[in-house]
Amino acid sequence: MCDDPAIDKPAKLLTPGPITTTASVKKAMLKDWGSWDSDFSELTASLCCQLTDIANAGSSHVCVPVQGSGTFAVEATLGTLVGPEDKVLVLANGAYGQRIAAILSRLRRPFVLLDKGDYEPPRAEDVRAALAADPEITQVALVHCETSSGILNPLEEIAELVEREGRSLIIDAMSSFGAIPVDAQRIRFDALISSMNKCLEGVPGFAFALIRETVLQQAEGRAHSLSLDLYDQWRYLQRSGQWRYTPPTHVVAAALQAVKEHAEEGGVEGRLARYSRNRDLLVSGMRGLGFETLLDDNWLSPVIITFLSPADEHFVFARFYAAMKKRGFIIYPGKLTQAETFRLGVIGQLYSEDIKELLDAVSAALDEMNITLPNRVSNATQA
Amino acid sequence: MCDDPAIDKPAKLLTPGPITTTASVKKAMLKDWGSWDSDFSELTASLCCQLTDIANAGSSHVCVPVQGSGTFAVEATLGTLVGPEDKVLVLANGAYGQRIAAILSRLRRPFVLLDKGDYEPPRAEDVRAALAADPEITQVALVHCETSSGILNPLEEIAELVEREGRSLIIDAMSSFGAIPVDAQRIRFDALISSMNKCLEGVPGFAFALIRETVLQQAEGRAHSLSLDLYDQWRYLQRSGQWRYTPPTHVVAAALQAVKEHAEEGGVEGRLARYSRNRDLLVSGMRGLGFETLLDDNWLSPVIITFLSPADEHFVFARFYAAMKKRGFIIYPGKLTQAETFRLGVIGQLYSEDIKELLDAVSAALDEMNITLPNRVSNATQA
Ligand SMILES: Cc1ncc(COP(=O)(O)O)c(C=O)c1O
Ligand SMILES: Cc1ncc(COP(=O)(O)O)c(C=O)c1O
Repeated sequence: MCDDPAIDKPAKLLTPGPITTTASVKKAMLKDWGSWDSDFSELTASLCCQLTDIANAGSSHVCVPVQGSGTFAVEATLGTLVGPEDKVLVLANGAYGQRIAAILSRLRRPFVLLDKGDYEPPRAEDVRAALAADPEITQVALVHCETSSGILNPLEEIAELVEREGRSLIIDAMSSFGAIPVDAQRIRFDALISSMNKCLEGVPGFAFALIRETVLQQAEGRAHSLSLDLYDQWRYLQRSGQWRYTPPTHVVAAALQAVKEHAEEGGVEGRLARYSRNRDLLVSGMRGLGFETLLDDNWLSPVIITFLSPADEHFVFARFYAAMKKRGFIIYPGKLTQAETFRLGVIGQLYSEDIKELLDAVSAALDEMNITLPNRVSNATQA
Repeated sequence: MCDDPAIDKPAKLLTPGPITTTASVKKAMLKDWGSWDSDFSELTASLCCQLTDIANAGSSHVCVPVQGSGTFAVEATLGTLVGPEDKVLVLANGAYGQRIAAILSRLRRPFVLLDKGDYEPPRAEDVRAALAADPEITQVALVHCETSSGILNPLEEIAELVEREGRSLIIDAMSSFGAIPVDAQRIRFDALISSMNKCLEGVPGFAFALIRETVLQQAEGRAHSLSLDLYDQWRYLQRSGQWRYTPPTHVVAAALQAVKEHAEEGGVEGRLARYSRNRDLLVSGMRGLGFETLLDDNWLSPVIITFLSPADEHFVFARFYAAMKKRGFIIYPGKLTQAETFRLGVIGQLYSEDIKELLDAVSAALDEMNITLPNRVSNATQA
């Protein structure tokens, strides 16, 4: 006998994805598509074209979608672009940088790990030294927004250094693409990987990579996997207009609607403005309630923010989670090895009103748990 | 500038998946889920439990879902279960058997291919001879319904022989599971792979394998891929209730609704009855119109049927496809190397009424193309 899951009323997701999407994005899934039909091929072509445009990459890069989660696309990109004779410098300051290293290690592709710990940003100077120490390095892999702490890593200075040193750059922009500007004609990269269910506000089911066409052309037969071979996927798409294996048709239809709404909000600029407002309201409100952020202000991404768990013995994450869920908010646990933390995302369908309600809910949850934080400002949520 | 795709009114899909789903399955996607939340973990647990029950496999096998299309799950299963010291006998009689061989070849896992051509079924006798000729063979891989021709391969006799010979069996049941009975306590297999978007009538976005637990326990660290490691996925699910990487939450919610409706229709038995009725109506109707099936009646699956393209010079598949699409039906091209064919699926939300309308549409399409088939019975569609 299988248990029947309880299906509750929708809550607001304060997570780094899947996020709260619009009703119209979800409604785009109410149609069945023939994956072999030309209507669906047009849909895919339009989506890929628009995703490439968001990075101003149309003249240099191609968009290759791949079924599965973001990790599948990271693995597919590394497997397709990194050969056994290459060597990757992996810049890690959190779980997703570590995951790149784990993938390369599973694929037996040579790499060196520059590990900055839980949240220190890798700087151009670190990369310069690492490249000088090891001339065999061919590629550098960087996580743009390291979602495990929420830090926005310094992409521009690293990309500039990597270009100057004649190496190529692979960017995991999973949690930043669509909200933090990246112009492929100004920031040189060979691959940028992202997924629909974060700042692009689609639903999960596939991810994609923007890959420099001249680099992808060299990648035939290199991948370690059939399903995750982005060269084959690209060629098949080019030739037939179709995905190589069955695409998540409904999710792709939702993605097209999501990029339409992204454009309507003013593209990257519009989304950055809203998410930044959300972050600023959230950070000042949480500080008013007595919480501290893990990072200094200049490293706080407009995506997800890590807060230190209060030292108060009454603060237990599971209780806080339940108290917030009861109030209609799904929050996110921390992912650091050292400090006790939790995270709040500000992406997806969240507006100033939601952040204010969220702060009220945090305040009420603290009351329920009998916690008054020492640094609390009186009337903190009445801003 | 990206083209705007035209979004037409829904057509009936006569394809081997993605298929036409119920409105209620699609509506299950109208909610956003936190993938870390316990509500979603319950959903996953209930789904996996029900999928295992469909094969009566709960006492021996575990259900491991994996993001991506069916091919991803086939590759994940082979990568996780087949080691470099194993050898697989691949029984191929079409594109999906060939794909198993292509995966093993990409993964550098030893295999021998028993290739029966485009549609001849592999028989127990063939397998016996192959195993006798090569005692190094550890596993046998079989496609249950070979969707490229629509043939239903003789699973029972092959499973019996494989068990008797002390080898293990891996079944690609992508296009049969949910409509053709498989009882894990009677048909011995180590893995059975399937996907939601065929006979289970869900939407595409993930697939799954039912794997013998004692076999999976031995599989730690064997997979060639991080994303496609079913051992890791299983352990993570067991430990946390969560998918190891972001699941396609909306698609999983639709899957739960789909298995509920599968049970309401009477499970495998009920679905087999409807699909068999569809097939019988379709085959006799198409024969009445003068078409011939590729296969003899006893090999025709209640899933998808291959018809020979008429010799008439006016018959051009692209024109036939367009004429059918105009009438609200999406048909499917053939996938054989030798004969010119096309395919019509009978799975998904298709009932006798739809098959009758389909036959009328075929008749009208032939008229439009100025084709009268020599074997046409007068009043063929008035059955
Ligand atoms: C920066 C980054 N990389 C990779 C991933 C992995 O994506 P997924 O969970 O979809 O596999 C995530 C997920 O949050 C991420 O934030
Ligand atoms: C028997 C069989 N195996 C494998 C596959 C591959 O599945 P997918 O296209 O979802 O990758 C299919 C798809 O139709 C199939 O019918």
